[in-house]
Amino acid sequence: MGNIEFSETKILKIKEPTTLKSGKVLSNIDIAYETYGKLNENKDNAILVLHALTGSAHAAYKHKDTGKVGWWDDMIGSGKAFDTDKYFIISSNVLGGCYGTTGPASINPETNKPYALDFPVITIEDIVDVQKKLIDYLGIEKIIVAGGSMGGMQAIEWSIRYPKLVKSTILIATSARLNAQGIAFNAVARNAILTDNNFNNGNYYDGENPSSGLSIARMIGHITYLCEEAMYKKFGREFKDSPSFDFGIDFQVESYLQHQGQVFVDRFDANSYLYITKAVDYYDPIKEHGSLEEAFKNSNSRFLIISFSTDWLFTTTQSKQIVNSLIKSNKDVSFVELESKCGHDAFLLEFEKQTKIIKSFLKG
Amino acid sequence: MGNIEFSETKILKIKEPTTLKSGKVLSNIDIAYETYGKLNENKDNAILVLHALTGSAHAAYKHKDTGKVGWWDDMIGSGKAFDTDKYFIISSNVLGGCYGTTGPASINPETNKPYALDFPVITIEDIVDVQKKLIDYLGIEKIIVAGGSMGGMQAIEWSIRYPKLVKSTILIATSARLNAQGIAFNAVARNAILTDNNFNNGNYYDGENPSSGLSIARMIGHITYLCEEAMYKKFGREFKDSPSFDFGIDFQVESYLQHQGQVFVDRFDANSYLYITKAVDYYDPIKEHGSLEEAFKNSNSRFLIISFSTDWLFTTTQSKQIVNSLIKSNKDVSFVELESKCGHDAFLLEFEKQTKIIKSFLKG
Repeated sequence: MGNIEFSETKILKIKEPTTLKSGKVLSNIDIAYETYGKLNENKDNAILVLHALTGSAHAAYKHKDTGKVGWWDDMIGSGKAFDTDKYFIISSNVLGGCYGTTGPASINPETNKPYALDFPVITIEDIVDVQKKLIDYLGIEKIIVAGGSMGGMQAIEWSIRYPKLVKSTILIATSARLNAQGIAFNAVARNAILTDNNFNNGNYYDGENPSSGLSIARMIGHITYLCEEAMYKKFGREFKDSPSFDFGIDFQVESYLQHQGQVFVDRFDANSYLYITKAVDYYDPIKEHGSLEEAFKNSNSRFLIISFSTDWLFTTTQSKQIVNSLIKSNKDVSFVELESKCGHDAFLLEFEKQTKIIKSFLKG
Repeated sequence: MGNIEFSETKILKIKEPTTLKSGKVLSNIDIAYETYGKLNENKDNAILVLHALTGSAHAAYKHKDTGKVGWWDDMIGSGKAFDTDKYFIISSNVLGGCYGTTGPASINPETNKPYALDFPVITIEDIVDVQKKLIDYLGIEKIIVAGGSMGGMQAIEWSIRYPKLVKSTILIATSARLNAQGIAFNAVARNAILTDNNFNNGNYYDGENPSSGLSIARMIGHITYLCEEAMYKKFGREFKDSPSFDFGIDFQVESYLQHQGQVFVDRFDANSYLYITKAVDYYDPIKEHGSLEEAFKNSNSRFLIISFSTDWLFTTTQSKQIVNSLIKSNKDVSFVELESKCGHDAFLLEFEKQTKIIKSFLKG
């Protein structure tokens, strides 16, 4: 606690070609990353925190350029859940993202224009393989991985893919695979982007952004991040002013969604939204390995799994599916369902409850 | 059962001006309606069935022009839940609709062009008042009202607004008012229409329809009509073919939604979608009357309320709210929550279970 800490986003340039799950090859990958705290001599105090759908490398502290606080600043810092007095915390932007790591808005070295839809489709496995290059570069030999939502999927894949490296895995508000309803929401969100008149088959970087479509995508997302309890508590059926008797904004919940849509289009690339949601939809270690037990077979990690009672996007039932598979595989697993009225958003909001549990797990 | 019955859609023309809840006045309202069975001499065997968001007057039988079967044909006919051997069933298209009743696509007599957004905003109360003109025209003196989803809202309003006329009220998969989450889904659906490049402030009747926006609206709707159980059962995470590794259709659930969106744009008017969803959002007899008990105070109706276990758009909790208010008001009320894996769609699908309950209620 105490002094204000500032963060800096660095870029690691990977020159060697990376073969993706699709078989396609990407050369010249930039990885944007931040670190907090100090790596110890044994290089075994590292925690890799993994961001969700629209996150960035900027997980904690105030950013030295923008002054903005990181997305998990409540959880990362001196004395916090991920304690920078003890741990070396690493956060990187995912492959396909739009916050410094190579993605569809990056320049394709073959054409000197943005990739747009020539960017290869990426998977959670590809995202993790690129993170691994950063971890190798930093010389890390044992690692703790932690993430919520899509960050949790990356953490699952880390423990499957790099069983010797991962000593602890923290999965929050996540699932081994998206259910059909989750795919459906992503499909409609992508459809809104793809059918926006400005989309131009992804080549909108010289013109108008497909901001209507991206805004709708974000609004759909926000409905799934909240829950009816949270919406009731935040907005109820309250009017913003009085009934407009036209098609303007009537209810507070409409105003909230509209605002969320508007701020999002200024900060996120529509093509990245397509690629990253597709990576989430595709992720399915159960299909990939035959079963979760088989997938986790070689893992030496301890696991902490946290779900939230009102999360209907990544439900407690889905968390329990992971827990049960880990128990069957004789892994060391702790599971907590936290009561919350915040829906899926809880993993970004309920930091006090999470802090106690994570601290105790990391001590153990 | 037995012979195939054919239906015919008739138009009742209302010349007298109708003052809406907003204070605006509509003249020359057409009401499209169908009837099934025969009105008895006492004119007290009528059942008014009330359609949901995108329904029409064509509730039962094969339509004599199109050959299409009505939306509640499983429930209306000889020997069925609404038995045409005993009852005279009436169904009409709602005000604001696009199936024959006056709505935004109708010709504005003042301009000789479609109303488009010059059509006044309508409410559930207005919809019911217009239906009342049809019921008066038919000379009906006692009536049973029945509806699911938005049809249930109309049935609620019938029993509040015309307490002497309504002798029985059947409310299926409905709520006295939409919750914040429901408003949120409607708001995003409307936003998709309003921001479609073809929308042209509602004046698209001479050009291209805002079909992308309307299609997205419908897809969002369908997600809320199903439930995760239904989606899992219907689609799971099955691929349509194999992963496309592009942004085409990958999963069966995507294909289903895309199809639902596509067929909808050919059968529904985008402006009607705006007006009718707004009517649903606004409806709030609790706010209007201070409480539901107060709203139902003068009702002499018996009530049957049916909810479905997996309906997350109009939940059992919401049905119970109505039930509790009716009990407090000393009304005759029966309530059943039916187990179903069909989500909100259950009211259109689970006809066998509903038939038993409705028949028994109508006998009582």
